[in-house]
Amino acid sequence: MNHEQVLAQYVGHFVDQLFHSGVKQVVISPGSRSTPLALAFANYGKVKVWVDIDERSAGFFALGIAKESKEPVALLCSSGTAAANYFPAIIESHYSRVPLIVLTADRPHELREIGAPQAIDQIKLFGEYVKQFQEMALPEATPTMLRYVRNQADRAVQVALTPMSGPVHVNFPFREPLVPDFSGENVWGSDITNSSHTSIRHEKEWDKHEIETILKEKKRVVIIAGPLSDSTVYSSIFHLAENWNIPILADPLSQLRNGSNSHLIESYDALMKSKTIRDRLSIDLIIRFGAMPVAKPIHQLMNEQIIPQIIVDEQVSFRNPSHQSAHYIYGPPSEVAEGLASIKWRGSEGWMQWWQDLNGRAISILSQRNTTALLTEGDAVLGIHKEIPEQSILFAGNSMPIRDLDTFWISSEKNIFISANRGANGIDGIISTAIGMAAGGKRVTLIIGDISFLHGMNGLLLAKRYKLPITIVVVNNNGGGIFSFLPQAKDKETHFDLLFGTPQEVEFEKAAEMFGVAYEQPTDWEAYLKALRQSYKREGCTIIELQTTRDHNVTWHREKWQMIESIATERLKEIKNES
Amino acid sequence: MNHEQVLAQYVGHFVDQLFHSGVKQVVISPGSRSTPLALAFANYGKVKVWVDIDERSAGFFALGIAKESKEPVALLCSSGTAAANYFPAIIESHYSRVPLIVLTADRPHELREIGAPQAIDQIKLFGEYVKQFQEMALPEATPTMLRYVRNQADRAVQVALTPMSGPVHVNFPFREPLVPDFSGENVWGSDITNSSHTSIRHEKEWDKHEIETILKEKKRVVIIAGPLSDSTVYSSIFHLAENWNIPILADPLSQLRNGSNSHLIESYDALMKSKTIRDRLSIDLIIRFGAMPVAKPIHQLMNEQIIPQIIVDEQVSFRNPSHQSAHYIYGPPSEVAEGLASIKWRGSEGWMQWWQDLNGRAISILSQRNTTALLTEGDAVLGIHKEIPEQSILFAGNSMPIRDLDTFWISSEKNIFISANRGANGIDGIISTAIGMAAGGKRVTLIIGDISFLHGMNGLLLAKRYKLPITIVVVNNNGGGIFSFLPQAKDKETHFDLLFGTPQEVEFEKAAEMFGVAYEQPTDWEAYLKALRQSYKREGCTIIELQTTRDHNVTWHREKWQMIESIATERLKEIKNES
Repeated sequence: MNHEQVLAQYVGHFVDQLFHSGVKQVVISPGSRSTPLALAFANYGKVKVWVDIDERSAGFFALGIAKESKEPVALLCSSGTAAANYFPAIIESHYSRVPLIVLTADRPHELREIGAPQAIDQIKLFGEYVKQFQEMALPEATPTMLRYVRNQADRAVQVALTPMSGPVHVNFPFREPLVPDFSGENVWGSDITNSSHTSIRHEKEWDKHEIETILKEKKRVVIIAGPLSDSTVYSSIFHLAENWNIPILADPLSQLRNGSNSHLIESYDALMKSKTIRDRLSIDLIIRFGAMPVAKPIHQLMNEQIIPQIIVDEQVSFRNPSHQSAHYIYGPPSEVAEGLASIKWRGSEGWMQWWQDLNGRAISILSQRNTTALLTEGDAVLGIHKEIPEQSILFAGNSMPIRDLDTFWISSEKNIFISANRGANGIDGIISTAIGMAAGGKRVTLIIGDISFLHGMNGLLLAKRYKLPITIVVVNNNGGGIFSFLPQAKDKETHFDLLFGTPQEVEFEKAAEMFGVAYEQPTDWEAYLKALRQSYKREGCTIIELQTTRDHNVTWHREKWQMIESIATERLKEIKNES
Repeated sequence: MNHEQVLAQYVGHFVDQLFHSGVKQVVISPGSRSTPLALAFANYGKVKVWVDIDERSAGFFALGIAKESKEPVALLCSSGTAAANYFPAIIESHYSRVPLIVLTADRPHELREIGAPQAIDQIKLFGEYVKQFQEMALPEATPTMLRYVRNQADRAVQVALTPMSGPVHVNFPFREPLVPDFSGENVWGSDITNSSHTSIRHEKEWDKHEIETILKEKKRVVIIAGPLSDSTVYSSIFHLAENWNIPILADPLSQLRNGSNSHLIESYDALMKSKTIRDRLSIDLIIRFGAMPVAKPIHQLMNEQIIPQIIVDEQVSFRNPSHQSAHYIYGPPSEVAEGLASIKWRGSEGWMQWWQDLNGRAISILSQRNTTALLTEGDAVLGIHKEIPEQSILFAGNSMPIRDLDTFWISSEKNIFISANRGANGIDGIISTAIGMAAGGKRVTLIIGDISFLHGMNGLLLAKRYKLPITIVVVNNNGGGIFSFLPQAKDKETHFDLLFGTPQEVEFEKAAEMFGVAYEQPTDWEAYLKALRQSYKREGCTIIELQTTRDHNVTWHREKWQMIESIATERLKEIKNES
């Protein structure tokens, strides 16, 4: 494809999605840089085009249309002070809560702030008077980028409409030549099935018929339960899984690994590590509750295959890094789950059985420990699972600990609330957050790596001062263990430890002494369990250091995954033959 | 009061309101500039104080407390990089939607950016990672400023809790000396009745008993209906007024002046212009729907007296410039009105009769025209009221036209949707917005002043191009008429016309010719009515220019108000004697 065709697809998909998301009218002020979008609107035909040479007037005109029609209206202008002329109307629409989609064309990055004509800094030009500012990527027409541009259009409209409704600003850098070639294929994307990024806005009654239509041809449906902070959702999601006879791939932070349910698949991360298996599964519908799960195979799956999704979120948000189309249902997860459960639909017995069998076998592999060997990072989790008191809190550090929890934390009857800092996934502040979780009086167990521990060690001042009940299990592999799983680990000779492994050679016992907290360093399984048990009897803080080695950890993890993969592949052949 | 006592009241009221709004815990990092708030929390006693010397750790600790308790938690630190250390925890709380109230102390304005020690620019320090940034005023302890500081505390908590929940940042400039004197009176404000700024968050069932308690001792209750964009709310509000037997003071943009109802008081602006009357009314409860009305007497009333308010708003917002305490009910106005109507309570007959009688008399004064005299600005409105087609839209310019509409627009059976740009009340963009309102095909009548017309004249290009059905009544008093009502008008010799009156001496007929739209300049009543009628038969745009004089306009308005005031005063004496 040449530049003009790429340009046509990029702006074409954007305009098509604006229309599907609810924009029926656009007010365009003439200009050169905005040519691609102006021509796209004119060629598209379904969005009514109004033209006004004065952007100040155009802004207020669009406001009037939106006020009367009670629908979002788009505005389009060229680069430079043209955009600044929208400011008065944007301010009025902000205060009067009128949804406007403000599209401004811009010079590409290489022509900014170097004295090019009619190039002003348009980044966040309208400050906090717009609800959202989107700096768009330069036009590309790969499948990912077409999904991206479609998502951005939908997001602009949804954000503009969500209370408080108001204006949003989308800034498009365009390179010359600026006239798109609309004669090619797939300009608007409407000819691809599944391209429209429908958002269902939750209005108490979302459309069950639409869901029934989606379910009609589907055979291999899964529920993915990502992080959920409400620990009462589980019964509704179990109910849905039972009625539809489908598996729940449950993240440890979903709070679903409390109580046992035969539809719960805790080992999905291990089961889906191989691309061959992901391909063979042919999942044809995902129903996701909560944020994206930590398990990498799910992220890989969504990049490899186009799979329809129903995403249930409490708030209007866009936690969908795949850029794939999705039916969003915004509402309380438990209400939505019960609503879905009331739809009559049932998956095949073979499908559910495959997951149940494999989960059973995977769990037995993952729970097996070689009692003579060194303590592993899996053992760290298994030990906590065994000894942790009922009704307490388990907090996971980021990087490896949350992943180890995902792999090794089997469902528990102890009603454990599992938490982590998964907003931005930083390794900073983990100790302090976990101690904060203990401030309410509940006992907290923290599992954390050595680098994260050192980074946030000052938090122990809080433990020292307030004697809050916390058991900190430090998995000390003397460095950043997660990097050993990454490609750069192959080249260990050059710079690996300097830049990634970063061994600190710190004695954690001294830290414990300095902050006046209890310290144990068990070297075998029984000693570890005993240390945990003792810590739970103690007031205040205990640090339990488990020394592991990064290399051993990688080998050990990979062996387990290998075993699980081969069993899963075998069993998957059978189910293929059945269905 | 000395500085230390003022300081104590200011921070004391803030801390007390934080507590009443739901903040039970604060994490403080030691510092000098933050002394007033730190000591306030410590002296207050009801908010649990945690101390952590490291702000980075403190931020994450507060995050943990908030995650576990599911309640908003406050953070407090000193000025300078101390605040910057909160940034990682703020980012995590933003993405994980955890409510944090981040309080930072700051140097006062005169010590900023002049090389004073530990003074960094803290304005919007955390950018868009906080939901709201509040730059606080320097401590003062006037009643207004104590209401202000209390409002800001409540607003910080409400904004942090409202979906998406997240962090807010409140920045406090403090001057030395920094140690407050907590030994005086009224430090926390809890001893003043009506000081607590309660917010009722709408959860489908708000607390009827609480409203019943508020109503118990009340006698003189009014409904104020401000701008509402939903034209179907009126029946529920009428229902409420009937059940409780109380008047509705209805702004023209409330959409309540459609259809007649004996509880509707259109003339309240004129009736309440005199402070004597406002005082004598002794209104003891206001129930407000929608934004603040345009009528100045309401704003004056709220500054003069402390009156309990129930504010009904669709969204969590704070449209309450009085800073007075209020019960907020967030929810759909019609549902809330019906809910209130179901509470058994009834105002006195005398109260309702006073309003009805006076409204009747005021309307007859306002509708009277001296047929021989010059056309007035009231005539402009009365003519439109007479001739405007059913089911059409009336758009009001800002400054005088919206006020003239408030005074002279009596309720109409024609089902007119009345609109204006009241988000930011600018005189810019009025013509373009009104033409935009016509884009949907409904006929629009715009009433606008000459300065606003000239400012937005470019919008006529849209009328010319699209032939949209709009009648523009330009009330041309050759300048900014509203300024003639202001104090500076007394000194007409010096600069008044140069700076405020700004007569433009423009021939509007030429503008009409230039843009190719119809033009009329009637000079008497019958000609004006005829011009309106003809415009409504015409396609496209008609400009009707009414020439008035600013001085005559002021005199004429004031005469009417005088008549109404004297009647109202008289009648008010009777009702006083009755009750």
